[in-house]
Amino acid sequence: MSVIIVGSMAFDDIETPFGKSNKIIGGAGTYIAYAATHFVQPVKQVSVVGYDFPEEELEELRKRGVHTEAVEVVKDRKSFYWAGKYHLDMNTRDTLVTELNVLGDFKPVIPESYQGADFLMLGNLAPAVQLSVISQLKTRPRLIILDTMNFWMDVALPELEEAISKIDVLLVNDSEARQLTAEYSLVKAAKKILAMGPKYLIIKKGEHGALLFHQNKVFVAPALPLEDVFDPTGAGDSFAGGFVGYLAKTGDISFENMKAAIIAGSALASFCVEKFGTTRLKEIAKEDIHDRLQQFKELTHYQTEL
Amino acid sequence: MSVIIVGSMAFDDIETPFGKSNKIIGGAGTYIAYAATHFVQPVKQVSVVGYDFPEEELEELRKRGVHTEAVEVVKDRKSFYWAGKYHLDMNTRDTLVTELNVLGDFKPVIPESYQGADFLMLGNLAPAVQLSVISQLKTRPRLIILDTMNFWMDVALPELEEAISKIDVLLVNDSEARQLTAEYSLVKAAKKILAMGPKYLIIKKGEHGALLFHQNKVFVAPALPLEDVFDPTGAGDSFAGGFVGYLAKTGDISFENMKAAIIAGSALASFCVEKFGTTRLKEIAKEDIHDRLQQFKELTHYQTEL
Repeated sequence: MSVIIVGSMAFDDIETPFGKSNKIIGGAGTYIAYAATHFVQPVKQVSVVGYDFPEEELEELRKRGVHTEAVEVVKDRKSFYWAGKYHLDMNTRDTLVTELNVLGDFKPVIPESYQGADFLMLGNLAPAVQLSVISQLKTRPRLIILDTMNFWMDVALPELEEAISKIDVLLVNDSEARQLTAEYSLVKAAKKILAMGPKYLIIKKGEHGALLFHQNKVFVAPALPLEDVFDPTGAGDSFAGGFVGYLAKTGDISFENMKAAIIAGSALASFCVEKFGTTRLKEIAKEDIHDRLQQFKELTHYQTEL
Repeated sequence: MSVIIVGSMAFDDIETPFGKSNKIIGGAGTYIAYAATHFVQPVKQVSVVGYDFPEEELEELRKRGVHTEAVEVVKDRKSFYWAGKYHLDMNTRDTLVTELNVLGDFKPVIPESYQGADFLMLGNLAPAVQLSVISQLKTRPRLIILDTMNFWMDVALPELEEAISKIDVLLVNDSEARQLTAEYSLVKAAKKILAMGPKYLIIKKGEHGALLFHQNKVFVAPALPLEDVFDPTGAGDSFAGGFVGYLAKTGDISFENMKAAIIAGSALASFCVEKFGTTRLKEIAKEDIHDRLQQFKELTHYQTEL
């Protein structure tokens, strides 16, 4: 089934306790696309880059089945750039530099060839941009998934709430779920968020895994326990890409199948953090993903005698 | 199979954001016994109380299949008493009062009727006390499980390390695993701890569930997502009780069955936190536990098409 992915494509400069990345390819849309194409092809990318974004990276994405017709290249400006430094716990980080550049006035245009998509994955971007994409689609996708972050809750809450009211699956992390609802209990926060519109809510908890809420049902997915998290950048986006890719491949958007999709997302996220940037997402093959999914099964399944 | 439980029996005074308990029955050994007897009877209790510990509570325990021959009653001293106040996040707490009383010079004596037990559950106590119990057993139990806490790492590390070297399953929480090994990564911490003697390590992560490590294998159990954690006191001990009770009932100490035992422990812990003290552990019946175990299955199991 066809998928539209909307998200930033950018440069990152990352420092972790394990080393420095220097300037490498990043951006939510990039991670989502590299993760999703392990399950489904083609995916239809919507993004914006500057003159400095390497043509070889676009070519690499195209080779993997990413349509780039709606990846706008702005000839006289630079790509979005972010520099950050992770703390020892790898769960918190300081932003050192944010240069919006082309992302500052990004106005996505959905081409005719993208219409009729079954899945829409809205990566973390200004809610107004996310809303603009939704409004440009002539037929509503079967499933709209939206990722966001605390920043938009601080500076664009009304637009974010409007966007959230129009989607099917919201992706946030635990502190964002708490901020959005003023509830400490994630179960209470989930009830409030599901009342805002989405039929499904995924709360990401980093090394503690993820929760899926739907009506009165809950599913808990673990994160793979790793010796070292080398670079957490893009883990949430890889999760989103694996999730939507698995759903699009299987074509089944039931709660039961979303459980498996969350495990697929967790598997892609577990690869992502093993090296800097998108390195691992590019290296892994079908067998690696198959083995990792098997590891998740052993990690979570048990037989009880009672 | 027969089980010996060693642990404190005490009074607690608990304040949470939901209210105050006043002085109620607590103690690791009490929680472990109430939880374990939902799966296996009898259990053989080793503890010490003062003249103020209510005879009705001992009678209640006996009715549930707890042998109290080795619960020493000291006629002229008071029972162990702890008062604490939980913060809003329910994961951190301040100790307001600790009165060791009879626990200060507790010297457990294992009676002849307790010899030959298959399981030994050493609740959190001074490592010297735990070691004394191990040394008094004429035949080594099939499985020795030890719970401990950061306090003993601070004040009695050599004895704790000696105790850890003699057991099969160590129970600690995530920050204790990190303190014991000076490793931030729980996977690295687990490797170091397994090299200290135990064949199995369980790392408890509160609302984030628990990890079981054995050789190169890992299992992740979730905690049940709850609207409110009313009182977290005793959750870890209820977990331990459910864990050892399930193993003793099934008689199977394989890694595969320990997975199910950890789910059983998590189920008992999820009941414990619903009300103050041991209230819920006393209320629940077989059907409640059966339903809760079913909830855990739905929470964790999924079918994947890949």
